[in-house]
Amino acid sequence: MKKLINSPDSVLGDALAGVAAAHPALHVDTEARVITRAGGPSVGRVALISGGGSGHEPLHGGFVGPGMLHAACPGEVFTSPVPDQMLAAAQAVNGGAGVVFIVKNYTGDVMNFEMAAELAGDDGIEVATILVDDDVAVKDSTWTAGRRGTGATVFVEKIAGALAEQGADLAEVAEIGRRVNAASRSFAVALTACTTPAAGKPGFDLAEDEMEVGVGIHGEPGRSREKLEPASAIVARSLDAIFADQPLAAGDQTIVMVNGLGGTPLIELYVAYAEVAAYFAERGVQIARNLVGNYITSLEMAGVSLTVCKADAQMLALWDAPVNTPALRWGA
Amino acid sequence: MKKLINSPDSVLGDALAGVAAAHPALHVDTEARVITRAGGPSVGRVALISGGGSGHEPLHGGFVGPGMLHAACPGEVFTSPVPDQMLAAAQAVNGGAGVVFIVKNYTGDVMNFEMAAELAGDDGIEVATILVDDDVAVKDSTWTAGRRGTGATVFVEKIAGALAEQGADLAEVAEIGRRVNAASRSFAVALTACTTPAAGKPGFDLAEDEMEVGVGIHGEPGRSREKLEPASAIVARSLDAIFADQPLAAGDQTIVMVNGLGGTPLIELYVAYAEVAAYFAERGVQIARNLVGNYITSLEMAGVSLTVCKADAQMLALWDAPVNTPALRWGA
Repeated sequence: MKKLINSPDSVLGDALAGVAAAHPALHVDTEARVITRAGGPSVGRVALISGGGSGHEPLHGGFVGPGMLHAACPGEVFTSPVPDQMLAAAQAVNGGAGVVFIVKNYTGDVMNFEMAAELAGDDGIEVATILVDDDVAVKDSTWTAGRRGTGATVFVEKIAGALAEQGADLAEVAEIGRRVNAASRSFAVALTACTTPAAGKPGFDLAEDEMEVGVGIHGEPGRSREKLEPASAIVARSLDAIFADQPLAAGDQTIVMVNGLGGTPLIELYVAYAEVAAYFAERGVQIARNLVGNYITSLEMAGVSLTVCKADAQMLALWDAPVNTPALRWGA
Repeated sequence: MKKLINSPDSVLGDALAGVAAAHPALHVDTEARVITRAGGPSVGRVALISGGGSGHEPLHGGFVGPGMLHAACPGEVFTSPVPDQMLAAAQAVNGGAGVVFIVKNYTGDVMNFEMAAELAGDDGIEVATILVDDDVAVKDSTWTAGRRGTGATVFVEKIAGALAEQGADLAEVAEIGRRVNAASRSFAVALTACTTPAAGKPGFDLAEDEMEVGVGIHGEPGRSREKLEPASAIVARSLDAIFADQPLAAGDQTIVMVNGLGGTPLIELYVAYAEVAAYFAERGVQIARNLVGNYITSLEMAGVSLTVCKADAQMLALWDAPVNTPALRWGA
């Protein structure tokens, strides 16, 4: 295992120290393991909290800031955070208008966020939950009942975050987040596996001429293992899966993310984006907004995930609203 | 070789198609292989042009936009662009106040930009050149006479770009760029090699327990090959080399970049940043601004480069000025 770390045991704590040092606009509670905006709660505003295992950076800590999340709860690498973290986050950022938990659909995360919601309720904090389950590759998987939550998380956090910033109430913020999730689909292909610091060896084996089709963000098995294909074929089979699950018609507007899994050079993501753009153009489906880069990663895994959100005018307007976080920033 | 590409021959063209599709604020001349701002030349403003081999994305195309570059000339992977590209760029973006070529110190780039400067001169375009040579690891290397140009390029492009935006003349823009380069030092360590599409195999071999200390951005040999060390030791030996070359005293202000070489998970870059912050704090040297992420990469190489610029008040103010490019955006 070759990693730029001090020790497998200290990765999360060391990284949080780095986040704290690098971003004065964030506050990092290294004991509770909660990242919040430095300014404290937004009084009268709904607060968005997300979290999950580490190893997917910039998700979620890189999306804390005005216009997006109020708090992130990082677990150990590929391990759910615990309810106490989420409770501490809720207590830290609740501005009196309640908190929204944005939860990727993995059994551990779902269970722990549910317990945290009960604890926060006992504490007098109103909680709504948005469950993200956008990955069309498989139903039920290693760590999931139902579909896995992946790239749509970025869209949910951005768009619901913008609505919260505008002063919408808890039900409205939760509702737009659920609508974004319902309108989004993702599919990923891995060219290599990744290695968690604790395991010290790759999570699965792929031959030099193979790829994992429909892989999960922890390297969970997908639909099939295939011979490596050109970017055009990888994109086509991914978008075929997405379009089969949610048909899109000529004139539909979308937000599209071409996301690197951590070890893919940016030049290759642009090669993939060219294929995506051609696929959409052939069908007359519009890409109204796009992201190309590393937004939800799987450590150093090579590969790409595609996320497509069928966006209405409200979603696009909220997408364009100012955001100021370490990993996503515009208009601010 | 596992790459998300269509063919080794078409990588650059395919990626440029993706850049064009993803970024409506950019104009991509796919024939001349020049990326410019979509709005055309900035009349009366000095125009900044950079370029170099591809494989270092987001450098340079990702830094084209208001507040930074006017044009980028991408060569094939790890191969200098040709003078015709730079001339086409100069003709496309010259707003009547001259153009600045920002050139990383590699023999091919230097020669080709020199020829382009002559051609542009013949065409009546005034040209000034900023040579970037910030890598303290080695003097003379595989493709370089003198020091290699690496991470300081990002600082030069940002700071000189901001001054050009304010209406400074050609001499002033060139002068601040040269001062930023003179005030900057870099050092990189590779944990793995990278593979160019054309070669199809890694540029060098590193054993499972080895790292290349002082590596160049094309995988050029560094100072030594060592046993893999913890992040704290890797950062200390890199900063020792930087501080030995340019002593920094308590109270000095700096801009620091912790840059991933393409295959390093972001969580590890934050582990490294924590070590950098501690090293600076021990010496009382201030990190006034920082970047943590992938800004000048070597395809999928795992490893990190550190760049430190001893910044004066003017440099910091120009750093903070609005910038709106695909890879660097704030205040806009």
